[in-house]
Amino acid sequence: MARTEPGTRSVCPVAYALDVFGDQWSLLIVRDLLLSRRRAFQELVNAPEGIATNVLADRLERLTDLGVVVAAVDPDDGRRRSYFLTDKGLALFPVLFELIRWSGAHHAGSPATPAVIGRIRRSAPALIKQHRIERDAACLDQAD
Amino acid sequence: MARTEPGTRSVCPVAYALDVFGDQWSLLIVRDLLLSRRRAFQELVNAPEGIATNVLADRLERLTDLGVVVAAVDPDDGRRRSYFLTDKGLALFPVLFELIRWSGAHHAGSPATPAVIGRIRRSAPALIKQHRIERDAACLDQAD
Repeated sequence: MARTEPGTRSVCPVAYALDVFGDQWSLLIVRDLLLSRRRAFQELVNAPEGIATNVLADRLERLTDLGVVVAAVDPDDGRRRSYFLTDKGLALFPVLFELIRWSGAHHAGSPATPAVIGRIRRSAPALIKQHRIERDAACLDQAD
Repeated sequence: MARTEPGTRSVCPVAYALDVFGDQWSLLIVRDLLLSRRRAFQELVNAPEGIATNVLADRLERLTDLGVVVAAVDPDDGRRRSYFLTDKGLALFPVLFELIRWSGAHHAGSPATPAVIGRIRRSAPALIKQHRIERDAACLDQAD
């Protein structure tokens, strides 16, 4: 897939969204950054699905190019990066949430019980607010 | 990807959903079946994104195996099939809708304007109801 702005398949908004994250990993990275509060490359590698490092690096670069993810370089160690969601990335929360609801309703034995889904829904505004604060602080450090 | 029940990557509901339709085509097929009322293989091939026939056949088979799509054989012509969404497939509408909203908000020049999004939201219940009626009639024909 080209690393350019997608949307060449058609003008359809579904096609655009799938050009951005229509693969098995991108939305898991969004989940990890937002819901699991993983920030560093190594933390993302350690997620339970076992993403390969080259796939993770590729997806992070692609999501960064597309304005969904932003990387902040640690001011004390230029080799360390923290990854955050941009506002465009945070706006994917409703997509993530509907995926979780769908799996909860249609995958036998899913841990996404109504109680869990309710907890995710209630915690989302604070989680998004906190993500923004941490992101803006990290990106401000970087600008210094 | 194996054609078995997915969910082996982890118990996470996001991972399950992406195991089912985490690719560039499956949700476009759901869109075509539900929003564009395409039913026949050739109608799905003619969608603007230009899906390859082998990819379409593979995805339809996979989505059928996973209980998202059901195929009804034309009682007058056994070679002709119509494809419909099962209730599990119709329940993907909120995912599709949030993808459309996200693209509308974050893809410059997207045709998913607030007016279009409002129209999709308002028409959804009738569209889903009609889909169910046509599907159940087609599957009943097949059972005769």
